[in-house]
Amino acid sequence: MDRYPPNILKSLAADIASAAGAPRADAAILADSLVAADLAGTSTHGLSRLAIYVKRIRKGLIDPRAELKIDRARAATLAVDAGNGLGQVQAVKVLDRLVPMARQCGVASATIRNSQHFGAVGYYCNRAADQNMILIATTNCEPAMSPEGGCEAFFGTNPIAASFPTGKGFHVKIDLATSLVARGNIIAAQKKGERIPQGWALDPQGNPTTDASQALLGTVMTMAGHKGYALALMVEALSSVLSGAAIGSSIGSMYKNLDRKQDVGHFFCLLDIDAFMDVADFKRRMDETIDRIKSCRKRPGVEEILVPGERSDRTMRKNVREGIKLDAATVTEMRQMAQEFRIDFDAIAGTRLVSPSA
Amino acid sequence: MDRYPPNILKSLAADIASAAGAPRADAAILADSLVAADLAGTSTHGLSRLAIYVKRIRKGLIDPRAELKIDRARAATLAVDAGNGLGQVQAVKVLDRLVPMARQCGVASATIRNSQHFGAVGYYCNRAADQNMILIATTNCEPAMSPEGGCEAFFGTNPIAASFPTGKGFHVKIDLATSLVARGNIIAAQKKGERIPQGWALDPQGNPTTDASQALLGTVMTMAGHKGYALALMVEALSSVLSGAAIGSSIGSMYKNLDRKQDVGHFFCLLDIDAFMDVADFKRRMDETIDRIKSCRKRPGVEEILVPGERSDRTMRKNVREGIKLDAATVTEMRQMAQEFRIDFDAIAGTRLVSPSA
Repeated sequence: MDRYPPNILKSLAADIASAAGAPRADAAILADSLVAADLAGTSTHGLSRLAIYVKRIRKGLIDPRAELKIDRARAATLAVDAGNGLGQVQAVKVLDRLVPMARQCGVASATIRNSQHFGAVGYYCNRAADQNMILIATTNCEPAMSPEGGCEAFFGTNPIAASFPTGKGFHVKIDLATSLVARGNIIAAQKKGERIPQGWALDPQGNPTTDASQALLGTVMTMAGHKGYALALMVEALSSVLSGAAIGSSIGSMYKNLDRKQDVGHFFCLLDIDAFMDVADFKRRMDETIDRIKSCRKRPGVEEILVPGERSDRTMRKNVREGIKLDAATVTEMRQMAQEFRIDFDAIAGTRLVSPSA
Repeated sequence: MDRYPPNILKSLAADIASAAGAPRADAAILADSLVAADLAGTSTHGLSRLAIYVKRIRKGLIDPRAELKIDRARAATLAVDAGNGLGQVQAVKVLDRLVPMARQCGVASATIRNSQHFGAVGYYCNRAADQNMILIATTNCEPAMSPEGGCEAFFGTNPIAASFPTGKGFHVKIDLATSLVARGNIIAAQKKGERIPQGWALDPQGNPTTDASQALLGTVMTMAGHKGYALALMVEALSSVLSGAAIGSSIGSMYKNLDRKQDVGHFFCLLDIDAFMDVADFKRRMDETIDRIKSCRKRPGVEEILVPGERSDRTMRKNVREGIKLDAATVTEMRQMAQEFRIDFDAIAGTRLVSPSA
């Protein structure tokens, strides 16, 4: 895999999104969020998604120029209709509106309906942490998991995320799907012809399976059984029931349903740290927490205890230094899109290619 | 086990708490929260806790007359010092203050420091749902779990809870510890001389163990490994880092540390449903969600799919009808406390005893 400078990729992605119809500023938001995911090593939410967004825009399934419509507003809340716009763009715009509300009231919250897949939830949380705020964010997504006891995909892998600023040079970033493993791990096992561990998934009849193909036809297990089910339902109730978005299995699949919109729902709750204590005190207390966690006695064979967000921060620093690795499929997609939009891929990316690292 | 009418138990518990020093209205709050837990079948957070609260009051480790002190306030937030008061009482008082703030602003949030064990988190969430609001609540608690990779108890079993009103006659109530299993299950196995399943706990050296005694000396596993660790840290950051309460292993143990206060921290975020959509619409959408979940195709051997809160609602209805079962140890403790406070236990409870059910 080749490595590319992040800024080059960001500029290329923004050019493509803009050519596909997004206003320039919005294209830049989308590009920033995708490249941030690649920087953090979460390539599943990075530029590998650009092609499907563009495809859906071209089919009229995403409106890249959609404006936010505010269904209801109070001093500290917004109920937003995203107008079937790009998930990342609409989410950032809502977050930007919440910031002054949270500064004023101490907390501000929004629901967003009629949205799309909006990438890595932690992106928005880190953006809030950059401003000394704490964002708790959830989203529903296309069906993958069944309720405990069931064997039909009803819930998405419904993630929960929150970031907390620290004095350590990185945010503590919690960002987790309520599934036991990401569906991507099962797809990877299938590609390699490997079996998956017992407990990851059920076949379509609801029996535990180690056959990756059967698992992909069936359902992914919730994390910790009934507890993950409960959390997935909490995420669904906040992101979708409360927002007015499609519920559970009514969410459209980004790749499979190329005939209808997704109608994904998101939930944001933004806390201004200064409403509770001085930001400096909060960061000092976060640092103390991190130090005490990292100096815990270790289990046999464990070299280092990491806090959530630490690994992705290290990956990000390495990728800023060495460039972002893109897999061949994503490069091919980007090249094709560039070609279709008459953007000179090689002029932008080719000449500034970083050599593959050892 | 004998069964007792809930109202009798509530009155008895209130009399005891009042005799121990709590103002009458506060004693009633504590009694209501404890009996609600017993009604719901969560006896670990019910009247079985009254004796330790009273013991701690008598040792001067809880101030039953503490007033709330507001450290900081904005239109939609409160940073509260609970003054080392009774956890349940202070939490209810804070929630009652948040309700009009959330009606006004759409959302309201509070941190509470310098508090105690405050029982079942879902109690507060259900109380909010009774008013057509959604409460997301977390608390830290005395150390039981290590961060992933560690083997020292740092986190409590740090629960997350939220309730959602429905049109079904019960609230969807999510209330889960971020540990794989409750420590109580390990204590129960030890008492019966049984081994615990692999994966529940680590011994003090950080090795997996099936020996309940070793497990009790060691640490309980987080749910879903690193994911439960991340959630436990999120709960700690919200409940404790942001509130100013003791962090992680600095929390006092309710039973073991009879020489110092606990300094537990709680976090509340209260959403007014009407700020996002009509309450009737929300309930209709919750009901649709419940109906679709319950009619999912079932796994082999599964008779019914339950939604969180449904089982405890059934237990509650049964207990309201038939009386609350109390174990002998709790009855003995209640009788002893009554005697010490010159309350006639038998006059209150004895004559109205419900016969043991078959």
